[in-house]
Amino acid sequence: MSSRLIGVLSGKNFVPPPLWMMRQAGRYLPEYQETRKKAGSFWTMCQTPELAAEVTLQPVRRFGFDAAILFSDILTVPAALGLKVAFDDGPKLPTITSTQGLERAHEAWAAALAPAYETLRLVRPALGADTALLGFAGAPWTLATYMAAGGGGDEQKAAKLWAYRDPAGFAKLIDVLVDAVSRHLVGQLQAGADAVQIFDSWASGLTPQGFKDWVVRPTARVVAAVRAVLPEAKIIGFPRGATLAGLERYARETGVDAVSLDTAVPVGWAAEKLGDDVALQGNLDPLALLAGGDALARGVAAILEAGRNSRLVFNLGHGILPETPIAHVEQLIALVRGSS
Amino acid sequence: MSSRLIGVLSGKNFVPPPLWMMRQAGRYLPEYQETRKKAGSFWTMCQTPELAAEVTLQPVRRFGFDAAILFSDILTVPAALGLKVAFDDGPKLPTITSTQGLERAHEAWAAALAPAYETLRLVRPALGADTALLGFAGAPWTLATYMAAGGGGDEQKAAKLWAYRDPAGFAKLIDVLVDAVSRHLVGQLQAGADAVQIFDSWASGLTPQGFKDWVVRPTARVVAAVRAVLPEAKIIGFPRGATLAGLERYARETGVDAVSLDTAVPVGWAAEKLGDDVALQGNLDPLALLAGGDALARGVAAILEAGRNSRLVFNLGHGILPETPIAHVEQLIALVRGSS
Repeated sequence: MSSRLIGVLSGKNFVPPPLWMMRQAGRYLPEYQETRKKAGSFWTMCQTPELAAEVTLQPVRRFGFDAAILFSDILTVPAALGLKVAFDDGPKLPTITSTQGLERAHEAWAAALAPAYETLRLVRPALGADTALLGFAGAPWTLATYMAAGGGGDEQKAAKLWAYRDPAGFAKLIDVLVDAVSRHLVGQLQAGADAVQIFDSWASGLTPQGFKDWVVRPTARVVAAVRAVLPEAKIIGFPRGATLAGLERYARETGVDAVSLDTAVPVGWAAEKLGDDVALQGNLDPLALLAGGDALARGVAAILEAGRNSRLVFNLGHGILPETPIAHVEQLIALVRGSS
Repeated sequence: MSSRLIGVLSGKNFVPPPLWMMRQAGRYLPEYQETRKKAGSFWTMCQTPELAAEVTLQPVRRFGFDAAILFSDILTVPAALGLKVAFDDGPKLPTITSTQGLERAHEAWAAALAPAYETLRLVRPALGADTALLGFAGAPWTLATYMAAGGGGDEQKAAKLWAYRDPAGFAKLIDVLVDAVSRHLVGQLQAGADAVQIFDSWASGLTPQGFKDWVVRPTARVVAAVRAVLPEAKIIGFPRGATLAGLERYARETGVDAVSLDTAVPVGWAAEKLGDDVALQGNLDPLALLAGGDALARGVAAILEAGRNSRLVFNLGHGILPETPIAHVEQLIALVRGSS
């Protein structure tokens, strides 16, 4: 693959930088809404390779982004561990408080994860060589927060309490997840993904020790396990809401090739402190994209300026919001691509 | 006043450090629950000086904390600006999108804020000279997030969009709030508060520029306006969720005497980078307090160790949770006070 995104992950610097958007296959696109209606449910869409491939390709077709990212959900991994996942009003899954009954039973594993691999096999040949195909998984800590709380939202509370009260038991859950996440990432890379992103969406609010124990170490283990099978695997990590001290540790100790920055991280700081170790991805505020106009132009300019001597992948600091006008995405692309 | 807390804000270092807890007057206390039941509503309790004074004093009576903090709510300031505030299922107030109609009408102002001053006048003589009395207010940015969104929760979205789309109009709202917050802090200090804390509870997730414009500058203006009237005023700032780079700017540029740290901030980092400019307050994870046992002991020890050469006020990283056992608060106090 000769895509510019993989180039950045491999040590090159491009001006203008390659560009994609987290949640680029999403509700702001009318063609996505249409496929979603046809599918009937979000989960059906994730688990039906033809539909998942279609929505994965839609934003690349419309905007010519430098990467496509597999349409799937981080809760496919808990599902693969035998937990029944539903998406009625937001994600729902059974609350767990121990690892009993959690196993990679072959049947649940294949039912939950095979569709992702099949989707990647369908998408890769439909993309040009200059477009990277990304797989992804939730990080062990973030998956644990969902599994301990039984749902989505700002619910680190149950996982934190478990980790405080029974560190050994919680470590067993993390072990199970390190294994499952690693295997799922390997599966995606073997099915055609050119790189993978690990989403630690609930990495905020941990103590420094907690961040080290539950974010940095499990991620380092995942990266090592993936590279044990695929030594050249390219991996992006996104510890959303990490402190700057946490980001330094994450960049140095996990082995990821790139760190995706949330909106609050100063790109200039990241270029100086992390830029020798990793490529940087990010970090336009999705609300600046929604607002458009001057706010969007200023936000893009600030990131390009601060990151111009770095290996940068232009992205948002978090997923695009469903109410974002398509015209603003077009404005974003023009601003980034006109920046050479 | 010769309290140790004011001593720390004035440049002294105590071992063991003075100790209080955010939301120490709260639902985890049976005596609070009883007063709350008598009052009928949360807002009635805030606005009735005898009841507010009673719950302000309860945690000091029971635990001998080094500070009492006025029982009130940050939404008293929007109420004083004429907005009708309700607390049914969480706070509710009318959504605003411009400053039209927002004014410090004398009547609304007095009705909303006079009870706080009266409460402070009742509480101060009931405390020993070694116990500090704290007033507080929401910071302009955090109040703006509530006023733009019409409610509580993680709702910076409406305020951010307003600030992106109409920076001049949003700046007018911030101007109104800087004035109102400053006057309310002055009023509290004149009514007997020994120091005040500015809560910027929603300071997370802003871009570096947004943090400077909407957190640091308005707070600096509030501090300057309070000191223009009361040059010796002691002020603690709590920009919850700020990045470490944001905290450095906040400590250097706002003029606060102390910075309250959320749970994710490494105290050792703060001691090194901020300790020359400001005292430090914090930052035990409320979930470590709820968990108790080893997690609590380790959390307390880590903070005391990292902060032992700093001007430290021991506190939580966020408010105490309602389900926290009283025995864990007693354990916390023993751990901190036994640390000399």
